[in-house]
This record gives sequence, C-alpha cells and structure tokens, in this order.
Amino acid sequence: MGHARSSRRHILRLGAAAGGGLLARGRGLAAEGPRSLGAPLGSYGERSPFEKAVRFTRPSKTPETGSSFTPIQDSLGTITPSALHYERHHGGIPTIDPAAHRLVVHGMVERPLSFSMADLRRLPTVTRTLVLECGGNSAGEWNAPGADVQRSYGMVSGSEWTGVPLALVLSEVGVKPGASWVIAEGGDACRMMRSIPLDKALQDSLLAYGQNGEAMRPAQGYPLRLINPGWEGNANVKWLQSLRLTAQPYMARDETSKYSDLMPDGRTRIFSFMMEAKSVITFPSGGQQLPGPGLYELTGLAWSGQGFIDRVEITLDGGRTWQQATLQEPRLPIALTRFRLPWRFDGHEAVIASRAVDETGYVQPTREALVAARGTNSIYHYNGIKFWRVGADGAVTHVGA
Amino acid sequence: MGHARSSRRHILRLGAAAGGGLLARGRGLAAEGPRSLGAPLGSYGERSPFEKAVRFTRPSKTPETGSSFTPIQDSLGTITPSALHYERHHGGIPTIDPAAHRLVVHGMVERPLSFSMADLRRLPTVTRTLVLECGGNSAGEWNAPGADVQRSYGMVSGSEWTGVPLALVLSEVGVKPGASWVIAEGGDACRMMRSIPLDKALQDSLLAYGQNGEAMRPAQGYPLRLINPGWEGNANVKWLQSLRLTAQPYMARDETSKYSDLMPDGRTRIFSFMMEAKSVITFPSGGQQLPGPGLYELTGLAWSGQGFIDRVEITLDGGRTWQQATLQEPRLPIALTRFRLPWRFDGHEAVIASRAVDETGYVQPTREALVAARGTNSIYHYNGIKFWRVGADGAVTHVGA
Repeated sequence: MGHARSSRRHILRLGAAAGGGLLARGRGLAAEGPRSLGAPLGSYGERSPFEKAVRFTRPSKTPETGSSFTPIQDSLGTITPSALHYERHHGGIPTIDPAAHRLVVHGMVERPLSFSMADLRRLPTVTRTLVLECGGNSAGEWNAPGADVQRSYGMVSGSEWTGVPLALVLSEVGVKPGASWVIAEGGDACRMMRSIPLDKALQDSLLAYGQNGEAMRPAQGYPLRLINPGWEGNANVKWLQSLRLTAQPYMARDETSKYSDLMPDGRTRIFSFMMEAKSVITFPSGGQQLPGPGLYELTGLAWSGQGFIDRVEITLDGGRTWQQATLQEPRLPIALTRFRLPWRFDGHEAVIASRAVDETGYVQPTREALVAARGTNSIYHYNGIKFWRVGADGAVTHVGA
Repeated sequence: MGHARSSRRHILRLGAAAGGGLLARGRGLAAEGPRSLGAPLGSYGERSPFEKAVRFTRPSKTPETGSSFTPIQDSLGTITPSALHYERHHGGIPTIDPAAHRLVVHGMVERPLSFSMADLRRLPTVTRTLVLECGGNSAGEWNAPGADVQRSYGMVSGSEWTGVPLALVLSEVGVKPGASWVIAEGGDACRMMRSIPLDKALQDSLLAYGQNGEAMRPAQGYPLRLINPGWEGNANVKWLQSLRLTAQPYMARDETSKYSDLMPDGRTRIFSFMMEAKSVITFPSGGQQLPGPGLYELTGLAWSGQGFIDRVEITLDGGRTWQQATLQEPRLPIALTRFRLPWRFDGHEAVIASRAVDETGYVQPTREALVAARGTNSIYHYNGIKFWRVGADGAVTHVGA
C-alpha cells in the first residue's frame, strides 16, 4: 500500500501550507437545496450542462483536413476524455462499419492474411496507458510563443489503449527474410500511410481497438488503429486497413513533404518518430485569471516517448531557481504524468515554467537551445520549456519571444 | 521498462497458441473503400453509431430510485467509460450548479467552514484509479444465479478519480476530541447520508470532483463526491453537501434498514463497508454465442476493497482444476484488474469460472461457502464465484443453483 502512504505524507506536508488565508471564514452554512426528485436513471450518461470544455478548431474551408486541440487547461488527472482527445485528420473521419472492415497483412510475408474485426477480437490483447502527441504539436512555438496552453500545447492526449500486439499477427503471417519496414495504410479518403521500421512493430506496436474501456472513437481511428508507443501521432495510423511488409520505406507524403524538418545545414531530418520529453503548466496558464493572492495548486502534464518521467522541475522566478514538483503515482512509461506543486501567490508578478527530465536523463530544452540545434525552418517536434507570467493582478499571460 | 518486457513474454507464450486454425486463410485482400471526404473535425467527439453498449435499467414507475448496470460484457481494459458507469440513485440525479454548490464541514470541529467548489479546486489534489461497487451488486445471486454478467455483476465500475484528501480539509476545520464519525450528506432529494468512521476519513477518503480526466458526470455525484476507497458504493456519498463530525454514527436509513444483512443467528451485520475480493469472467459470459471451435481470449475483471489482486485462477472444468490467468499490469490497489487467458474451445461443453485472491490472501468464496456463513437473508456483499457453461454449440449460459 505504498500509494496510500505516499498520499498521506503528501497531505501532511501540504496541510501546513493550506492553513493561511485560503478559506473564507464565517460563511453561513449551506442553504437547503430543492428537494424535488432529480433526473431518472439512464442508459448512457452525458456530462453536466455546466461543463463547457471543448476542443478548439480553427475556422476552415476544409474542416476535414486540420487539427483540433484538447482543452488541457481543464484537464484533471492523467486520462484525456475520449470526446476531447485531440484530432489531426487529412481526409476527414470515415464512417466504418466494423462488420465490414478488414485488415490485410501482405507484402514480404509467407501467408498474406485478411483479418475481420471479429478475427482480431479473438486474439490475445494487452492494455497500455499511453500518451499520444501530434508531431506538429506546439509548431507555432518555433516562431513565437502562443497565448494559451490549449492552442500551443494541446495536441497531446492520454488514453488507455487495448489491442493485439502487432508482433503476434506478424508471427502468424510469417515475415520473409529481407523485410525491414511495415507500410501502414489508413482507410480514410487520402489513404494516409506511414512506414514503420519492422523492429518497432516487433517491439511494442499494437493493433488497438479499445480506448478508455470501450471501442475507440471514430476520430481516433475506429475500428482499428496502429499504436506505436512514444512515436509522433501521425505514425499511429488510424482506420488501419493494410500492413505491407517491404524492404524499403514508402517515402510517403507524410514522411517526406510533411513530418520532416529542414535543418540549418540544409539537410532534412526525417523518420524522426520519437517524441522527446516535454511538459507544460496547465494551471495557471495563459488566459486564466487568479482571483487574488493565496494558496493554489500549480499543476500540469509531462510525458516522454522514451519511458518514465523521472522528475519535473518548476521555476517561479523566470528560470533562476527550480524546485521539484510532486509527480502523480503510479508513473507509467510513455504516459501523461500529472505534476503538482502547492504555490502561495503573494500578489507579486511571477514567471513560471516546468522542465521535464525522463528516465534516460534527457532534459526538456529551452526554446533557445532548440532553435540553436534545429534552426528556424522546423515545424515538428517542438518540445521547449513554456513560460507563463502571472501578473500582480492575477492575470496570466504568455511570455513573448 | 519492466512492463514492455512482461508484455513481450506474454506475446511469445500466446503466439504458439494462436498458430492453429484461428485465421481463415486464403481470403481476398480488402476491397477498396470509398474515397470521399469523411466527417470534419469537431469540438466534442461522440462514439461510433455502430457501438450500442448501454447500461441496463429495469422498467420502473419510479426510475429516480433504482439501479443501472454497466455492460461489462463489452468492457475493454480497466477503465469504465463515465457514460456507462453503473448508477444507484435514491432520489434521482439533481442538477447542481457548481458555482452555487457548497460543502459545509461542521459539528465537532473548532472552525466550521463552508467551501465553494472554487475553494476546493485551489487545494492540493491526488488522483487514484479505483473500483466502485454497489453493496447490492449481485444481490440476486443469493437466491439464484443470474443469466448474464451485466445484470448479475454489472454494478461495478472503475474510474480515475481526482480530488482533495479529506484529511486535509479536516485539518483545516480542526476535529475536536471525542469526534469519531463523519456524517456525510448528499444534495439529492432524499438527502442520502452515511456515517463514516473518522479513521477512514483520515486515512484515504477523497473529496472528488474529477473522473476520468474531466469533471465527474451528474450520475456519479457532480460536482462533488465523497470517495471512500474500497468501500461499498453507497458509502461514497454523491452530490456531497455536508460533513458533520460526531461522536456516534447517525444510524441513517441506508445503514440500518438498508445496506445491512440479517445473519443466520438473528443478528444484523451493519457498517460492513469493505467490498471483499471478487471476480467474474466477462467473455465468454451468459447470453453470448461463440461462432465455433478455435482460439479465444477468455477475459474478465477482478477487484478487492483490501488492495491489490494477487492472482486470478480460472477453471475450465467446473472447478476440478484451476490455472492462473495473466493479470494486466500495472495492478493498482482497489482497482479493476483485467485478467486474460488464451483458451482453445474444442467444441465440447466447458464449465468456466474465475476465482480472485487478493494481497491479504483472501480467496473469493463459492456461493455455497457464502450461504453457509451468512445464511439466506442477505442482500448485500455477495462476492461468490460465478460459473458459466459453454455448450458444445458455443452458446453460453449460466449454471443454475
């Protein structure tokens, strides 16, 4: 029961901090509420009408191709509600009847096979809680830091995925010698495809059909998605309908023209699948307003495509000093990790930021360090430290470039 | 990366088992699907129209007082979608404006306080993934085993809860000497209340407002619920509006007339908060139909109010022999634990069941052992082993009393 013990220590340490002016004393007790019968039992429960958090989507003439952003400023815990999972579509969300869907596994294999969803659902499964981040999350930050956390860091979400290990299916079809890539193709209008190294497919890729305890949502790839833990979202091909074993990558649009970055030396960084360690403070964050001085829980999310988050450090003075945040346990590898720090806002301006360190020792870089290494032509894989300014009046804004 | 290693071993062990007649060979490759643009990005994503799983509710003249059951036969992984979390209401679901809601903490305290939701949201939080089970789950099993898993074992759900440790709030109000109970009262029409021992409140109770990454759903207590890890659902008071410190329990309706059991010796078992270890096979389960012989993944859920699940044993021969299922890692204390076993159905009748053992060594009992200990007047706390019969034709039925 290590968890309970750890929680208790946490409480005791924070108890003293909460003893100040936080609670308005002498308020009256609660008025008696209405005693009329409430709403009846129901077959499917929706959220409260008072809850308004939604994904952000920019107005577009082609809303089938674009992105939506998870409202991480409202996030609690470590799971993203499936209804609020970020989106990045290239040809809209297809409506697929799972009874008619098939996954074909072919190419350099001994026995090409076509699997129905019923076939796949009979195979052994595993469940993993994983972060998924768009390779283009925070792309705007390369040029100028964004004003709020949803639009600047919100193409990241965490889910519990359930599916069949791809390695198991590959052992069924029999991979031929010489094959070293798996070309994954989606069933959307653009037939989005990505080339996945065979080593990854054999290591931990999943043919996922479950998300957060039920079938995955259409916007996340229903009925079948290739999940490549720790890799950029685009490589996690949705509406998966084909896996072709080859000796070469396909050099598809989304791994040459897109999802690649022009480096300062004129060469292009491609097949940069891994999402490196990153974190951001979600409260307080840009656009929020603190009602006044007093105790708050500063909190946010950290993740790494390479494994566990080892620690998250917080600065309250613009980067001069750093202290460790408390990490929510259990920390899971390649999963959203909630961090927290009790913080007494004293009514003076504070410039705050978080910095994640993962189990490999990799330290989330500053924006300046990133630009120094990768130049100014990059779009993808921005994972710089994000600063927010809490004004003396409690208004939270972003720190400009 | 212990998890990845463990998964890999799992795969290799199952790979051989999957090599037989499972996959229909020689099927054609997938036909090309339509290439028209799909649905656009959206602010809030719903599930696929092909997904039909819903809670089961019996027709009732008073649908504000009753139960609904989670479709655990369709469950995947370890989280229950909030929309499908079981319900047990005593006066309907109140519609509460969180801006107007208050939690009053009073009685034997130094400083009675009234907290707004905004006050509570500034306090330090913890997140815990926990099982919640109605004390009356499986109540019908005392008399006769039920026909399907949803109606007989479906008043159990798992969520990631986020909230403020109650101990922290109690340290703020200052509990007076002599207080030993906390009377929790809900804001529903019936003002449902339960008496909670102060020791529990100080140990691990939560004032929860988050569920699965967002504000909890109205049917689970929006905007505030008292979560008592491992205790019967009824003690986890929804729509929480008052906590009163006392020297005695309240002896409320739901801890005297209800949520108590008449024992064979004529005495009544009351304040039986803890939900003991339990498990059930969700696939294959009553009412399902296997399409024919071959490999299947036998799977189900196990949990214990006392901590971790140590192991789950499966019988395929009506209880004569038992073998260990694979448990999904990470196993969390007092949380739904998914178990799995690859199973080759050979077309002969099989009588199957699961038996959970928790970290204390407690073994889920047979129905006969339960009845021998508690008689036939019990309603609550049924946790007996559940048997299913898979017929030679693949039809799954329950095993009668």
